[in-house]
Amino acid sequence: MSVEKSFETMINPRFCETDALAHISNTVLPIWFEHARDPLCKAIHPSMTVDDWPMIVARISVDYIAQVFVQNPVKIITSVSKVGNKSFTLNQKAYQLDKLVCSGECVIVYFDYKNQKTIPIPDTPRKFLEERLI
Amino acid sequence: MSVEKSFETMINPRFCETDALAHISNTVLPIWFEHARDPLCKAIHPSMTVDDWPMIVARISVDYIAQVFVQNPVKIITSVSKVGNKSFTLNQKAYQLDKLVCSGECVIVYFDYKNQKTIPIPDTPRKFLEERLI
Amino acid sequence: MSVEKSFETMINPRFCETDALAHISNTVLPIWFEHARDPLCKAIHPSMTVDDWPMIVARISVDYIAQVFVQNPVKIITSVSKVGNKSFTLNQKAYQLDKLVCSGECVIVYFDYKNQKTIPIPDTPRKFLEERLI
Amino acid sequence: MSVEKSFETMINPRFCETDALAHISNTVLPIWFEHARDPLCKAIHPSMTVDDWPMIVARISVDYIAQVFVQNPVKIITSVSKVGNKSFTLNQKAYQLDKLVCSGECVIVYFDYKNQKTIPIPDTPRKFLEERLI
Repeated sequence: MSVEKSFETMINPRFCETDALAHISNTVLPIWFEHARDPLCKAIHPSMTVDDWPMIVARISVDYIAQVFVQNPVKIITSVSKVGNKSFTLNQKAYQLDKLVCSGECVIVYFDYKNQKTIPIPDTPRKFLEERLI
Repeated sequence: MSVEKSFETMINPRFCETDALAHISNTVLPIWFEHARDPLCKAIHPSMTVDDWPMIVARISVDYIAQVFVQNPVKIITSVSKVGNKSFTLNQKAYQLDKLVCSGECVIVYFDYKNQKTIPIPDTPRKFLEERLI
Repeated sequence: MSVEKSFETMINPRFCETDALAHISNTVLPIWFEHARDPLCKAIHPSMTVDDWPMIVARISVDYIAQVFVQNPVKIITSVSKVGNKSFTLNQKAYQLDKLVCSGECVIVYFDYKNQKTIPIPDTPRKFLEERLI
Repeated sequence: MSVEKSFETMINPRFCETDALAHISNTVLPIWFEHARDPLCKAIHPSMTVDDWPMIVARISVDYIAQVFVQNPVKIITSVSKVGNKSFTLNQKAYQLDKLVCSGECVIVYFDYKNQKTIPIPDTPRKFLEERLI
C-alpha cells in the first residue's frame, strides 16, 4: 500500500498581492508557500495550536521562474526532500496554468519554544516524513 | 501647561504595498493606521506585552480622499475624538506631500482577553485620553 | 425568474494572518473583503484588466463582532446595499463556524484613471447592480 | 576617495507583522528586505518609475538566525556580493538590539518587461555595483 507523498494547495491570488509592475509581488510567494505547508504541518502535529507548537522556520529560498499574475489560480505542491536529526526540508513548486512559475525550499527545525532550543524530531512525525521522502 | 494632544508617525511606503493600479492598495491604509496608533497605545499601556493587553479593535472606517503613491513618505496624525465608558475613538489623518490623502476612525474597546468581556477604561488611561480629547 | 443577489467567497485563514494576540489581525479583514468583492467586480467589468479599470474604493468600514481564528474557514457574503449616480455601496458579512464575526461596508466610485475624475456608472453595470439591491 | 559600500535601512516592526507565536512572522523578512533594497535600487535607477523599470527578482534566500520581536527597531544592511553579466547578488543582514537575527541573499536580473527578456547590466549601474562589491 502506498502513501500520498505530496500535498497540494490551491491559491486564488488576491488583487492586493499584485504590485505596480502588474504581477504578483515576489514578497507574496513566501506567504503562499507557508500556507501550503499547513496540510503537512497538520499531519505531523494535528493540534495546530501555538501552545505546544514544536517547529520553527530556519531557512527559506525561492526561485522565481516566471511572473505570476492575478487572474488564474496557483497550485502549490509541497513534498519532503530531506529528513535530518532535528530538521527537515520541504520542496515546494507553484504552477499557474500548468506552468512551473516558482519553486522553493524550506528548512524547518523542531524547536522547544519554552526552553528556546532545538530538539530531535519525535518518532511519529519522523516516520511520517521519512515515508514521504522523494 | 498644555499637553501634546496628537501623535505623529512617519511611514515610508513599501513597493510591495502598491498594487497593479500603480498606487498604494486601499488595504494598506488600515495597516499603517494600526501602526500609527502604537505611540498612543504605548502611552496608555506602557508594557506593550500581549499577556496583559487590555484593548481590542471594535470598528474602523477609512475614507480614501486621494490616491497614495510609493515615492513619498506619509505622515499620519492620530488624535482622540471620543472617550466613552468602555471604549474610545481615534481620528487618524494621513498626509502625503502635505496633502490630506486619507482619514480614518478607529473604535477601541477595553477588553479582558482571559474572561472574554469588555471592561471599563481604567482611571489612568481615561485621564490620559480625556486630556487629549479634541 | 430571479437572480442570485449575493456573492459568496470562502477564505482559508493563513497562519501569517494571525498576530501575537493569537487571533486574526484586524488589518486582515479589509484584505479578505477586497478579495471577496472580486466575483461582483468581475460580473460588472469582465475584463478584470487594469488598463481600463473603472472603479476606485472611496470608503470602507469594518465592524469586528467576534474574534476570528486561524483554524476554520471563513465565509464572506457580499451584497449590494445602495446604487447611486457615480458610486455604489456593498455590504459584506464574514462568518466563521456559522457565526457572524465581522461585517463591513465598502463604497466604490466609478473613476476614470486617465483623466483622474469620477464618472457615472454605465448602464450595464448599473442594471446589474440595481437588480441585486437588497 | 572611498565610497560608502553598503546601505542601511531602519524598520519599525508593526504589530500586525507578528503571528500567533508572538514573534515576527518569517514571511515578513522578505518584505523588509525588499524595502531595504530601495536605496540601492534608487541609486542605480534613479527614476524609480515602473514604466522603465529594468530589474526583476530571480531568487531570494533567507536564513532565520534568531527570533525577531515587535518591540525594537531592526537595522538592515544591504551590500553587493556579486556582479554578473545580466544579474547581481545582494547580501542583506538584519540586526535587532545589535544582534544578527536574519541574513538573506537576493539575485536581481536586468529585465526588459516589454520584450520579456533578460538584458545585460548597463555600464552606469554596473560601475556603481562593482565599486561596492564586498
